[in-house]
Amino acid sequence: MGEFDFIQDYLAPLAAPEGLGLLDDAALLTPPAGKDLVVTQDTMVEGIHFPSGEWGAGTAEKLLRVNLSDLAAKAATPWGYFLSLSLPREMDKRWLAGFAKGLEAGQQAFDWHVMGGDTTRTDGPLVISLTAMGTVPTGQMVKRSGAKSGDDVYVTGRIGDAYLGLQMALGHKVEPISGQGMMLWEEAYQRPMPRVVLRKMLRKFATASVDISDGLIADCGHIARASDASLNLDYESIPFSLPTRAWMDAQDNSLDAFKILVSAGDDFEVVFTAPLEHRDAIKKSAQIANVSVTKIGHVVMGEGVSCHKADGKILSFTRTGYTHF
Amino acid sequence: MGEFDFIQDYLAPLAAPEGLGLLDDAALLTPPAGKDLVVTQDTMVEGIHFPSGEWGAGTAEKLLRVNLSDLAAKAATPWGYFLSLSLPREMDKRWLAGFAKGLEAGQQAFDWHVMGGDTTRTDGPLVISLTAMGTVPTGQMVKRSGAKSGDDVYVTGRIGDAYLGLQMALGHKVEPISGQGMMLWEEAYQRPMPRVVLRKMLRKFATASVDISDGLIADCGHIARASDASLNLDYESIPFSLPTRAWMDAQDNSLDAFKILVSAGDDFEVVFTAPLEHRDAIKKSAQIANVSVTKIGHVVMGEGVSCHKADGKILSFTRTGYTHF
Repeated sequence: MGEFDFIQDYLAPLAAPEGLGLLDDAALLTPPAGKDLVVTQDTMVEGIHFPSGEWGAGTAEKLLRVNLSDLAAKAATPWGYFLSLSLPREMDKRWLAGFAKGLEAGQQAFDWHVMGGDTTRTDGPLVISLTAMGTVPTGQMVKRSGAKSGDDVYVTGRIGDAYLGLQMALGHKVEPISGQGMMLWEEAYQRPMPRVVLRKMLRKFATASVDISDGLIADCGHIARASDASLNLDYESIPFSLPTRAWMDAQDNSLDAFKILVSAGDDFEVVFTAPLEHRDAIKKSAQIANVSVTKIGHVVMGEGVSCHKADGKILSFTRTGYTHF
Repeated sequence: MGEFDFIQDYLAPLAAPEGLGLLDDAALLTPPAGKDLVVTQDTMVEGIHFPSGEWGAGTAEKLLRVNLSDLAAKAATPWGYFLSLSLPREMDKRWLAGFAKGLEAGQQAFDWHVMGGDTTRTDGPLVISLTAMGTVPTGQMVKRSGAKSGDDVYVTGRIGDAYLGLQMALGHKVEPISGQGMMLWEEAYQRPMPRVVLRKMLRKFATASVDISDGLIADCGHIARASDASLNLDYESIPFSLPTRAWMDAQDNSLDAFKILVSAGDDFEVVFTAPLEHRDAIKKSAQIANVSVTKIGHVVMGEGVSCHKADGKILSFTRTGYTHF
């Protein structure tokens, strides 16, 4: 099948009006008045970011969700995306149909559409790159750089479920394992939940925000660095699911297990900072949105990230997060 | 070297203010009032779109120029771009420095900047994807779909030089070869000239426009299909450089050689259509911009593309252009 067949048969039906039916050289976007554009790009390589041969709907949907997570952390409303696909030669039609189904699912769940892209062949592994665009009211994007000494630090969802899901996907032994854990971990790894539903709360209250793609500690470090401040996290406050806590407790050294979970990437939750006076409003917004939001620490003068136990001990991190290469 | 080093050491100095120092999760763009955004994406794969191992400044600059050519054909002013790099593991620092130099050259020549991107590792060939953004006054983007029966068909520059440059790059024999031909062909293939300087003329006069990436005939076909019309080209009018004409005349069958040149991709010139009454104005604009613009045919009712010789013969094409896969 040729490039034009794939684009016309599978992508064009998914395209936004801005994509001009994917029949032109470019997409034509009329930016909504009073809005800024938020643009982010994430690339996934077969064998690096997902297992070799896993070319199906799940991979497409995960790519969309990973990019949406960046938009969510910036408090943006998803608008549309551009898709670059470099396809191995032996890839067949059945795969492309599945991939398109995954895109469709990721579009419907978050109300956005493909606007354009490019499809090429490669002699190497599958490479998929997404350029995602969102909108925010002018001046309301939440950067990494606004955290102030005295602010609270919050995180959405639970930490570490996706790491255990990845271990399962890699065929590693994860014990103790339960039916609930398996489902939870697999879902967290395969279908992370971008927190776009919190965008209005973030616009109102957040001073800085980032999504966790490099690990909780590393991404807190990104806020600290950009904000010229230090993030102090409370060991006892970091939110874990029950199965993940059971896994941690069962390890030879549960402190080492804790360090692994807060250093692993792929959580795709949002870490943000906000002034004390918004605690109640944030709690209420989270309840209305039905998203778990946990206060996990506070911002102080200084630099870097530290994690404090109730007994006064401070945890240090030698491996602060996943480095892409 | 890590991802962060490359981005901070090489890309950040090239970034637009919208890129926020390449330190955040996303770029923040405030669209200029009264403008539409034109967005296009082109991906280049090592071993497919450029020779294996050619990772230098030339590849970076060509990628920028190829994307700028799409913007030029849409009559857009270049604004900025997002760069996705999937890098083979053995790639070294020296290469990255050269690549950044190529980006810098392509930025300076066309007054635009990198705004963001993503860098990953791959076990396969180098894959580079660019998402390019331009602006046009609202409603003035030139689509493929506006050609009207009676319009003239124009092309910028010369056809086929890039094809012969590709043959040289592949180590194929190109004869007769001259010093002038070598320089011209190599330049056309390595550093195509996006015709952004013609954007105001295109906005004023063009009814449809496309850049030649699949071959003159195939891309005329794209206008024909999108405009529901037929493009009749005059065999004798297609512009060739003197060395390329000499090459054509020296082949066993110069008609076959002609067909090869008008079916080859990579010219990155602009084909556009415009009403008769603008002939003089187009000629004048082209002179002022110092770009060769040649009338090569006209639009009629019907479909597809045909090429007519002065003796009345009509050329048919079995291979109408490069198909990406």
